Amino acid sequence: MYPEYILTLSCLDHRGIVLRVSGFLAEHGCNIIDSAQFGDPESKLFFMRVHFALEDDAMSDELLRAGFGSLCEDLGADGALHDAKRKPRVLIMVSKIGHCLNDLLFRYRSGLLPVEIPAIVSNHMDFYQLAASYNIPFHHLPLEAGASESAKLAQEARIIELLDTHRIDLVVLARYMQILSPGLCDALKGRAINIHHSFLPSFKGARPYAQAHRRGVKLIGATAHFVTGDLDEGPIIEQDVERVDHAMSVDQLTAIGRDVESVVLARAVKWFVEHRILLNGDKTVVFS
Amino acid sequence: MYPEYILTLSCLDHRGIVLRVSGFLAEHGCNIIDSAQFGDPESKLFFMRVHFALEDDAMSDELLRAGFGSLCEDLGADGALHDAKRKPRVLIMVSKIGHCLNDLLFRYRSGLLPVEIPAIVSNHMDFYQLAASYNIPFHHLPLEAGASESAKLAQEARIIELLDTHRIDLVVLARYMQILSPGLCDALKGRAINIHHSFLPSFKGARPYAQAHRRGVKLIGATAHFVTGDLDEGPIIEQDVERVDHAMSVDQLTAIGRDVESVVLARAVKWFVEHRILLNGDKTVVFS
Amino acid sequence: MYPEYILTLSCLDHRGIVLRVSGFLAEHGCNIIDSAQFGDPESKLFFMRVHFALEDDAMSDELLRAGFGSLCEDLGADGALHDAKRKPRVLIMVSKIGHCLNDLLFRYRSGLLPVEIPAIVSNHMDFYQLAASYNIPFHHLPLEAGASESAKLAQEARIIELLDTHRIDLVVLARYMQILSPGLCDALKGRAINIHHSFLPSFKGARPYAQAHRRGVKLIGATAHFVTGDLDEGPIIEQDVERVDHAMSVDQLTAIGRDVESVVLARAVKWFVEHRILLNGDKTVVFS
Amino acid sequence: MYPEYILTLSCLDHRGIVLRVSGFLAEHGCNIIDSAQFGDPESKLFFMRVHFALEDDAMSDELLRAGFGSLCEDLGADGALHDAKRKPRVLIMVSKIGHCLNDLLFRYRSGLLPVEIPAIVSNHMDFYQLAASYNIPFHHLPLEAGASESAKLAQEARIIELLDTHRIDLVVLARYMQILSPGLCDALKGRAINIHHSFLPSFKGARPYAQAHRRGVKLIGATAHFVTGDLDEGPIIEQDVERVDHAMSVDQLTAIGRDVESVVLARAVKWFVEHRILLNGDKTVVFS
Repeated sequence: MYPEYILTLSCLDHRGIVLRVSGFLAEHGCNIIDSAQFGDPESKLFFMRVHFALEDDAMSDELLRAGFGSLCEDLGADGALHDAKRKPRVLIMVSKIGHCLNDLLFRYRSGLLPVEIPAIVSNHMDFYQLAASYNIPFHHLPLEAGASESAKLAQEARIIELLDTHRIDLVVLARYMQILSPGLCDALKGRAINIHHSFLPSFKGARPYAQAHRRGVKLIGATAHFVTGDLDEGPIIEQDVERVDHAMSVDQLTAIGRDVESVVLARAVKWFVEHRILLNGDKTVVFS
Repeated sequence: MYPEYILTLSCLDHRGIVLRVSGFLAEHGCNIIDSAQFGDPESKLFFMRVHFALEDDAMSDELLRAGFGSLCEDLGADGALHDAKRKPRVLIMVSKIGHCLNDLLFRYRSGLLPVEIPAIVSNHMDFYQLAASYNIPFHHLPLEAGASESAKLAQEARIIELLDTHRIDLVVLARYMQILSPGLCDALKGRAINIHHSFLPSFKGARPYAQAHRRGVKLIGATAHFVTGDLDEGPIIEQDVERVDHAMSVDQLTAIGRDVESVVLARAVKWFVEHRILLNGDKTVVFS
Repeated sequence: MYPEYILTLSCLDHRGIVLRVSGFLAEHGCNIIDSAQFGDPESKLFFMRVHFALEDDAMSDELLRAGFGSLCEDLGADGALHDAKRKPRVLIMVSKIGHCLNDLLFRYRSGLLPVEIPAIVSNHMDFYQLAASYNIPFHHLPLEAGASESAKLAQEARIIELLDTHRIDLVVLARYMQILSPGLCDALKGRAINIHHSFLPSFKGARPYAQAHRRGVKLIGATAHFVTGDLDEGPIIEQDVERVDHAMSVDQLTAIGRDVESVVLARAVKWFVEHRILLNGDKTVVFS
Repeated sequence: MYPEYILTLSCLDHRGIVLRVSGFLAEHGCNIIDSAQFGDPESKLFFMRVHFALEDDAMSDELLRAGFGSLCEDLGADGALHDAKRKPRVLIMVSKIGHCLNDLLFRYRSGLLPVEIPAIVSNHMDFYQLAASYNIPFHHLPLEAGASESAKLAQEARIIELLDTHRIDLVVLARYMQILSPGLCDALKGRAINIHHSFLPSFKGARPYAQAHRRGVKLIGATAHFVTGDLDEGPIIEQDVERVDHAMSVDQLTAIGRDVESVVLARAVKWFVEHRILLNGDKTVVFS
């Protein structure tokens, strides 16, 4: 087996980028396994993801990375080169509703989600045992509703410490019912995914299933999006819906919604981990 | 073949309604073919739809209707008794985008939609020939963007005339791009269906596919709802969605959306025609 | 809170059944909360499910049950009267693939699935710890591929013992990869649900995702059905599908299929537990 | 506006194909608008589709085509170079059920489906007027059920004549209820699309909705596939499903199925017309 990599890049669109990238790969003894690109006619940006194998034994990781750095510089591109076998390190945050956490943990243990999970953070104690059954350290960082800003920042300081200590690549808010401070949102730009339990932009904010019930919609949904300072307005990664009817109570909508939330969040995390998601302003490019 | 009827009723919920209705039917020589009911724990209203056959040759339509009138009075119910074989009379309104019109017309001609369509109304001439190919009178009632209120009311007076002349049961706004006056909305309460080309409550108002594109959603939808004076806020009858991705332009979203709109509107019209839709305040009960 | 019940019945269709049932309920001081019925024009059978509250303090459970027995006798009906609050007792069987088991267990613990699970049976040891983390006894009843018939019957004798000991209402084959003997299938008629990882009747038998991949289908599915002696031919309870494309490997289809399987099986189990599923020959009536 | 092209090619997979193609395009003054590729690890075949603009005024169509011919030769590839603006010429065949025909015609007229339709062929007269309303010549080529082989071949000879006369690129069997002869199937390999009204491989052959009803499935579907001599076994292009329930008759399944058929067939035709479908043995690659 040859070493495999995934490269992603985005830059201003112009003629010849694909040629440049494929030339770079050929020169470095690499064979394309999968490749996708997209040129956005509005933002004039070009996005690319290439999964490839390094088939030349004489080529080193260092030389490849140096070459890729030069390529990005030449193209004026924002680029990244990932070892395809390395498991990204994920920190999961949760409050008192655990179906998304449980779903992610099972995928993790059964090998469906190739990640490391060095820590689970919660402002409650509910899932202490679930974390223990997976041998994952559980950090109880309580934060009361209506806590002062300084209390919140103190709690976040401990989260940031965990991010650093464990060299976290991705934060997943798996029904974490606290709003992150603007500072933390900025620090996590493009590497924190939240699940919102509505089909955004419908039913932002609190109690979306109750809102959906009141409006009498015939489908309910869930949205996985990047966290930004602007609540529920972050770039959307994935959405899905399920049919409901007039006879269903808010509780029934909530129960049906849980399955949608779990699946939507799991897809978004998987795509992140496979380096399939690129940011395009307030939107995402997903090479699924 | 016995004559068949569909009864619908709604009233304050209390014990024994089903018993009363089934007793009434048995006493009048009727056999239940299909029955559905729903008690809303919030509004405390009870809704019922029964499809039945009148199997007693000695029982007349008049007696049955008289008995049903008494039943509704006793129950304090809002009720209706429909001859199941009678085709409701539908007036379709359209502007310059015709896929919903074309879809409804084909269903009508092929017998999938058991209605009479005595008139098509448009503020444009685009579908004059399509109407002609179905032998349906086409009424061109132009109304400029930004027309005065008096011009609008004059145009609507002609629409109202058509509603009366043709004893219209249902008005379908099949991409009719004019806002009806509050007076006409009131007059048509519960018998005018609009198709909005978004998954309401997301993207109300103009150009919803452009709004959806800008927000970067991963599914687009359509909503059939009853027309009310509050634009895009009427009771929702049916919704559906289709998957889209980052590479699609507004035009592509629009093309995909057309198929969703056609199907969603056709379902709503069919359910109306089959007397499956009951109003529950700002929501609908759909016995589908 | 009044005591609540769910009655189900099926009998030859004839005029007046709904009247008889609603009369019986009224006479016994019961108020209908939810009711659904279906008359099959082909089998000439009538099916009914009524959820009701016993609101008369003077009426006892014994009298109600006696009255229901007489009603069923009069109607020639196959009927059942369930205490709506009683949790059905479920035994789950699994082999080496555990996503359905994990999903059911989480729903059970979080209260989404109101059941008792007194035992998990497996022919392998893989989920010993998962069962332990839920405090559910795990019975390892190994059975080799190609075991003799007598070995198989001996293993099944121990399963039957568990069914009796724990007064099991429902057996769920959550990816249990052994074929039950005809005798056990008969004994479990109408109370054992299997999940098959294809959209039946496509891709019966072994390795359905590999079959689906070979055929190049564009959607893959899962089917929950009652277990019968005729493998993969039992009455279908629920099905769903997910989109796939040409670029996906068998492993990817399998991963996507897991989510569909979990949700489809969970729905079927929930409907069973809520007494929503009635057998109609080789088909099911599902009052969902 | 520059002239635009779409190239497709398939060949044995090996390192450097993308580089070769992108080099060819750069050398000929072409800029990639959209590009997709797929390497099948099983068949070891590589597939590619590139949409590009010819931005060099000095480069002629002839030179570009010559260069592409050489490129394909070098790569041992099966390739095609399509003028992106040219509308493919489609012949539609239909019998007595017309929803797919009507749907395609409306998309054609409203510009959603950029094709020419020089002829409609039917073994019945039912859609003579519909064709006339679109100004498309209607060829009534009757063929009785149970016609002799010679009668069939004579009828097909007239079809072949139409294919030649009108230089047809694609034949669409839009519910054409005759089986094509093996000879005609061969002649049309990869350029005739059929809609089958089931989710293949379930319910091959006649009356699939009746088969689905008998089996009690909970979803019904439709499949668009390339026509081959092996009935209902051709490479699948697109499939979709819709939910049904136990209360629906065969007629209701059929009505619901019509909408699925129309949409599935329309997608398949659109993808063909956009040169998005490549054959991979008995399967398709669809760059959607």
